Amino acid sequence: MDRLQKQFDFILEADKEKFIGRQTYLSDGQRKENDAEHAWHLALMTILLSEYANEKIDVLKTVTMVLIHDVVEIDAGDTYAYDEVGKQTQRAREEAAAQRLFGLLPEDQGEKLRLLWEEFEAQETPEAKFARTMDNLQPMMLNAASDGKAWVEHGVHLSQILKRNQRTAEGSEALWKYAQEQFLLPNLERGTIIND
Amino acid sequence: MDRLQKQFDFILEADKEKFIGRQTYLSDGQRKENDAEHAWHLALMTILLSEYANEKIDVLKTVTMVLIHDVVEIDAGDTYAYDEVGKQTQRAREEAAAQRLFGLLPEDQGEKLRLLWEEFEAQETPEAKFARTMDNLQPMMLNAASDGKAWVEHGVHLSQILKRNQRTAEGSEALWKYAQEQFLLPNLERGTIIND
Repeated sequence: MDRLQKQFDFILEADKEKFIGRQTYLSDGQRKENDAEHAWHLALMTILLSEYANEKIDVLKTVTMVLIHDVVEIDAGDTYAYDEVGKQTQRAREEAAAQRLFGLLPEDQGEKLRLLWEEFEAQETPEAKFARTMDNLQPMMLNAASDGKAWVEHGVHLSQILKRNQRTAEGSEALWKYAQEQFLLPNLERGTIIND
Repeated sequence: MDRLQKQFDFILEADKEKFIGRQTYLSDGQRKENDAEHAWHLALMTILLSEYANEKIDVLKTVTMVLIHDVVEIDAGDTYAYDEVGKQTQRAREEAAAQRLFGLLPEDQGEKLRLLWEEFEAQETPEAKFARTMDNLQPMMLNAASDGKAWVEHGVHLSQILKRNQRTAEGSEALWKYAQEQFLLPNLERGTIIND
């Protein structure tokens, strides 16, 4: 039962994703989201929206990718999208975290998840591109639903959002178009995103 | 874009799962879990533990099932495993919730998710049995990790746990055996589960 013990060691350690806070408010604007809630939402979105992927995707692979894409933040913490200082050390912190965390699993599964995380980070395959599109659109949807509260709190400019999303359309042109029209434009109009 | 609008209506409404509290404490024993965190954990467990299923399962189908199995609680609320009064009205409350919530989606997807939820509830297919095994083992793992805090809080007896889990082995004999040895036995020995 050594194999099963290792699997449960990882599954229990993964519980700590629920303690990792993000900068996005939930739809009621009262509390910020954590990594586990975020990953659940991305998995649900992937299943419902895969038909809009630019290229055909393997849905189970993409769902697995989004479910584990933030596991490294258990050790490395969440680096906010517009935290330029934190981003300088992000890669090294996350690499060390991946080694420890995926290393808890039996070797075959640990290697598989680690490769999937690397693939997500590299953003080159159809699955990784679509997963990234989900990862970018979900907080945008919640920000729009909470009247742009997180954008206002951080004084976010349109140019920052566009830079962050310069590759979002690579996963899905249709979803990026929808997000611009439904999430960004109304917030630009009322000034909750600074138009620079 | 009417189809996409309906999909996002559901995806945004699903955010409310993050507000639905459960009775299980997280592994640090400080805060109770919510439905979205719970569903994420079950999805991760399904992917890592599917090799122990008694019968071969379709992993994507099972993951989809666990991701949406508690959506109805947005309207119906969480009914605690040992709340015998609440359980009398649970089915009717959840049926009405399923109608409203899955009804937000385009008809094909709403129907698909609704059938998947019905399948989970009926506990007859290999996927539904395994999903239920995940749903039963995950809080047991967290209760054990938090020194049986939730069991103590509710004065839970072994007979209640065994009744609740009388079909857990149908999804996986191996995992139910592991859970008895690793999660239940130590808590029986120290009295955090009442041995009746």
